[in-house]
Amino acid sequence: MTWTTGPTNSLVDVAGVLVGHHTRTDAGWLTGTTVVRLPADGAVAGVDVRGGGPGTRETDLLDPRNLVERVHAICLSGGSAFGLAAADGVMTALFADGVGFPMGAPGEVVPIVPGAVIFDLGRGGVFGNRPDSSFGAAAYAAATDDAVVQGCVGAGTGAKAGGLKGGIGSASTVLADGVTVAALVVVNAVGSCVDPGSGQLYAVSLGLPGEFPALGPVDPERLAQARARAADEVGPLKPALATTIGVIATDATLTKAQCAKVSGIGHDGLARAIRPVHTMFDGDTLFTVATGARGAGGAPDLFAFHALLEAAGDTVSRAVGHAMLAATSTTTAAGTIRSYRDALL
Amino acid sequence: MTWTTGPTNSLVDVAGVLVGHHTRTDAGWLTGTTVVRLPADGAVAGVDVRGGGPGTRETDLLDPRNLVERVHAICLSGGSAFGLAAADGVMTALFADGVGFPMGAPGEVVPIVPGAVIFDLGRGGVFGNRPDSSFGAAAYAAATDDAVVQGCVGAGTGAKAGGLKGGIGSASTVLADGVTVAALVVVNAVGSCVDPGSGQLYAVSLGLPGEFPALGPVDPERLAQARARAADEVGPLKPALATTIGVIATDATLTKAQCAKVSGIGHDGLARAIRPVHTMFDGDTLFTVATGARGAGGAPDLFAFHALLEAAGDTVSRAVGHAMLAATSTTTAAGTIRSYRDALL
Repeated sequence: MTWTTGPTNSLVDVAGVLVGHHTRTDAGWLTGTTVVRLPADGAVAGVDVRGGGPGTRETDLLDPRNLVERVHAICLSGGSAFGLAAADGVMTALFADGVGFPMGAPGEVVPIVPGAVIFDLGRGGVFGNRPDSSFGAAAYAAATDDAVVQGCVGAGTGAKAGGLKGGIGSASTVLADGVTVAALVVVNAVGSCVDPGSGQLYAVSLGLPGEFPALGPVDPERLAQARARAADEVGPLKPALATTIGVIATDATLTKAQCAKVSGIGHDGLARAIRPVHTMFDGDTLFTVATGARGAGGAPDLFAFHALLEAAGDTVSRAVGHAMLAATSTTTAAGTIRSYRDALL
Repeated sequence: MTWTTGPTNSLVDVAGVLVGHHTRTDAGWLTGTTVVRLPADGAVAGVDVRGGGPGTRETDLLDPRNLVERVHAICLSGGSAFGLAAADGVMTALFADGVGFPMGAPGEVVPIVPGAVIFDLGRGGVFGNRPDSSFGAAAYAAATDDAVVQGCVGAGTGAKAGGLKGGIGSASTVLADGVTVAALVVVNAVGSCVDPGSGQLYAVSLGLPGEFPALGPVDPERLAQARARAADEVGPLKPALATTIGVIATDATLTKAQCAKVSGIGHDGLARAIRPVHTMFDGDTLFTVATGARGAGGAPDLFAFHALLEAAGDTVSRAVGHAMLAATSTTTAAGTIRSYRDALL
């Protein structure tokens, strides 16, 4: 295996892909929105929804049987189903920029902005405080090709996983043939990212050489406390929805159906990094976007696609690990959520 | 067969189901939003997306494998993908009313509002004029159990079908066992609702006794003109998206999977009333909602469900017929769309 990370080890290592966050953490708030902005002519896209409680929009058009091939942005947001409103702000901004599915005369476009949400309502202390369309507009305006800011930002601001603070994580892989595949995830899971035996993050064992810091042995008492807190997450008296969502990007040339396949194997990456995942309390959804900047000759052959799939799964796992390591302990009126670093390292 | 229509022959014949329209037709505008409001504890729901260019939100949660069983409203809107914003206004209004999926303390709810849109951009003369969240809020506020207003209202305001004016149509059927199944459709199709041989609406032959007015023979020359106009709808120089969407409602007690099955057979009703339909330029989507007011003993047996399915298909066809007969010729800066009545009767 000759995989390396890209220059930033994050989603923007795929040329033309920008990421912007909008974060709100003033009193009563702990939520945000993350927008993945694509080249003006869009990127071929697919999706796989594997969680039992999804909140999504514009996923049906991604069915490989359907007309629209390219999307112009993906909107990830906190706010549960309310947060789907953030995509309205992204659509309005793209329309103002003249970007979208062309319907005739110049400027007559319909921007294609699939979206998914995580449940984080109430974590800032006020249940009704949630992203609206202005969050999407602000995240769109903030989009940049700088290394993705990770941790408690954007759609990951209010995230938690297995009783610990979750957040945004990202990673990238450059394959032997030069193709890049990268992932950005919002880790917000009923399940845990921590091996209950060792206290290590599951994702660390899947890291590329030197990618994750060497972690010493975990204190057994602190580990027991963290396990108890995770077990407390689901109970009959506490209806809780979680949901891990994300975007996989590549510069390979893929069909819509291949993008959906990449998303599917990306969910295997979630399965290796979060246990359990895809439960009835998670709405886990992964989009894949392919810019086609490489492979002008068309789709990769089966063996090249196999290599891309293998890398995509691990890249998602690694992004989960980075999310947990970048997250920081957070206190609001609703309480304190400790980070993995503070709870176990 | 002992089917009769319900008291209003429209969607509100299912007890507890309300319909509200918001319509905008001032200069530059020809669009609107229709909300189907359900009882406060929601209705079990399913969906089937069969068109090639759908615009939808919150359809993934309707997968029978997934957690959420009940929806609180369905939002149908003009505006293509932009119109998905209308559902934000419905969610906000439901939240203010304390209606939604319960997440804990009183008032901590997430309203479940699946939605779909039709393409009508530019038909009022200004491409950028489209529904926003205020349209959903207004349609929600207007919801009533009065007989559904049909024709060029709500989400059907800018609709057209086969070169003629489309719009909202509705119908209901009371089965022998007393179960009611009803449909509301927004007819906006690339294909035509008119038999090119006879000039009759396809749906008329599926009407219940006395339901549709007896129509005389159609003038051959007017029929030829209408056919030419329909053929003009799709061409390489005129990218056009259409889309017929709708809601089937019943007071039977159904599972989510059964609701999806009802939607599927509802699409057969579209197939009989519109030709072609489900094309790559249509995003045809049908939701089904079951209030469960009847059948406290649980789901109907297989033969009762069979009867319901058979009735659902024809009820959708009849609703299409009513849409075309209720539509009126419409002129905006973008031109004139003639109604079936004006073009052929």
